[in-house]
Amino acid sequence: MGKVYNIKPINLLQGEKMTDYLNSLTKPIGSLGAVEEIAIQLAQITGEDFPEVTPTGIIVFAADHGVASEGVSAYPQEVTVQMVHNFLDGGAAINVLGKQIGAKVEIVDIGVAADMERAELHMKKIRHGTANFLKENAMTRDEAWQAIEVGSDMATRVIENGAKCLIIGEMGIGNTTSSSAILSVLSGLDVADVIGAGTGITPDQLKWKEQVIRQSLQERNPDPNDPIDILSKVGGLEIGGMVGAILAAAERKIPVLVDGFISTVAALLAQRLYPEVKGYLFIGHQSMEAGHKHAIRQLEKKPILDLGLRLGEGTGAALAFPILKAATDIVKDMATFESAGIAEKI
Amino acid sequence: MGKVYNIKPINLLQGEKMTDYLNSLTKPIGSLGAVEEIAIQLAQITGEDFPEVTPTGIIVFAADHGVASEGVSAYPQEVTVQMVHNFLDGGAAINVLGKQIGAKVEIVDIGVAADMERAELHMKKIRHGTANFLKENAMTRDEAWQAIEVGSDMATRVIENGAKCLIIGEMGIGNTTSSSAILSVLSGLDVADVIGAGTGITPDQLKWKEQVIRQSLQERNPDPNDPIDILSKVGGLEIGGMVGAILAAAERKIPVLVDGFISTVAALLAQRLYPEVKGYLFIGHQSMEAGHKHAIRQLEKKPILDLGLRLGEGTGAALAFPILKAATDIVKDMATFESAGIAEKI
Repeated sequence: MGKVYNIKPINLLQGEKMTDYLNSLTKPIGSLGAVEEIAIQLAQITGEDFPEVTPTGIIVFAADHGVASEGVSAYPQEVTVQMVHNFLDGGAAINVLGKQIGAKVEIVDIGVAADMERAELHMKKIRHGTANFLKENAMTRDEAWQAIEVGSDMATRVIENGAKCLIIGEMGIGNTTSSSAILSVLSGLDVADVIGAGTGITPDQLKWKEQVIRQSLQERNPDPNDPIDILSKVGGLEIGGMVGAILAAAERKIPVLVDGFISTVAALLAQRLYPEVKGYLFIGHQSMEAGHKHAIRQLEKKPILDLGLRLGEGTGAALAFPILKAATDIVKDMATFESAGIAEKI
Repeated sequence: MGKVYNIKPINLLQGEKMTDYLNSLTKPIGSLGAVEEIAIQLAQITGEDFPEVTPTGIIVFAADHGVASEGVSAYPQEVTVQMVHNFLDGGAAINVLGKQIGAKVEIVDIGVAADMERAELHMKKIRHGTANFLKENAMTRDEAWQAIEVGSDMATRVIENGAKCLIIGEMGIGNTTSSSAILSVLSGLDVADVIGAGTGITPDQLKWKEQVIRQSLQERNPDPNDPIDILSKVGGLEIGGMVGAILAAAERKIPVLVDGFISTVAALLAQRLYPEVKGYLFIGHQSMEAGHKHAIRQLEKKPILDLGLRLGEGTGAALAFPILKAATDIVKDMATFESAGIAEKI
């Protein structure tokens, strides 16, 4: 059994207070659209009149997937460890975008298939990649809970170091296959509706990916009402890590800015464990990966950006972050009609 | 007659070079979607291998509209001058969002109906607001060219002070009425299709707004093939200012980040004067104002953000700016597959 998280409902009253305040600012009512909605949600999450989102912390969870050996990805499995080195060397997209928003990027080896040891790497490996879930369960139920706890501990540390907002991202060759399997179980949607080209497979490979997922779900038969059963049977360690990070952030009333398909599936698992989680989530962007729109719909959310991204790592969330920052700045720094002596509507 | 602008076609070869370089970076090809398209366009505009967009300059043109006396806006005309004071005091949304992106906000009185004198205000008033175009031409042809020249001079100054990117915005009670009139003429679309609620009028007021525009176009009868005729007959001084700013920026190979409905209509006028302008434009966001999607379509562009904004001032462009910055940072700072020693596709 895993740890119990104490996740409170968001503060709707604080949201109403924010709505009133936004309506007093020198702009037509509601004219900042989604930026105002974000400000309201940040008030609901934090309970603050003037919510803050900086500094923000980025946690990238990396792990391998046994199912990658079935040839479901455009890249070989070694790319996971190579990309982790790239993250640590500062050369990946998430490093660049993290720097732009002043966020520290924490890299967690929660299950890379190779042994890694580097000064800046958080070495929290639970196992050397999951098992190939076409043939056996990806991990044990206990390992799934361990993954959640690693993520939860990482998020707690980042938040205790001052982060006012959490961005989650991932790296793991094969992880769209795992995410599509999870989403199919959670949503009841057919596999064909929730798969996509991932990092760029061919139509033939996509057909094969569908077949692998379909057969895996038949063999593993995860229980749709038991998120941990799903995570352990067809999930991934980095996905479990993200679930834990989300739960820890929500418990501490810290907004979570979710990235693309894989992290949204993790968010959906977290929400199925603790429905109150939903109020703490922002979806950074609409990914090109076909399943993402379904995952977002399951969460009844709207993505902030729609830029045709399909990279992962937390990049779409990092790109969306300035919109959250703008929402807090607007509230903090704009004049009111009264303070500026401006006429209201005729 | 107005000044002649020497606007060169964008550099397609430099764009191809950028495409190749983007494909060498440590990410699946094309996986940064619109961010990569922006990087390519910035290369085409600037001719640089590593384009830059900082520092960026924001110019807000303010002017009044005689047609406001017909009751087409939710706010009284005095709000224009009150908002100019708010801009100068730093209390408006564009001040807050400009600060977030490190941009200086220049405010130009190009035709406010009241006399204004403040240290930080660029006093370039051409006349005290336009005439009510329901009854007579909004301005003379000469005044239209003067407005363009004021905008061009302002942009030139901002660019000579170092701006690598230009954001244009506006303030003017009644200016969605003028913009809808212009767009109807330029696009051939019916008035009903290009009007919206502006800052928030009622359905009855909207009907009246439609009638005012329809009758004005009948009376003024602007020539669809003569942008200056349209601008002088049913346009606005701040719209002319934005046209000039765009032309000057394009002449100097500086990207222009356009805001919402009114500034996109100005961009469309600029493009009809000099078709090559199109390559220098980015549309910051899709506004809620109904005509905006048509104006964007006329320019064959895609907006970067879609956040349900309808504020103007340049706010949507300022919110989009971090995406442009991200595009330049990605190019400058990401590792290549070769430099990072990462395997490419299987």
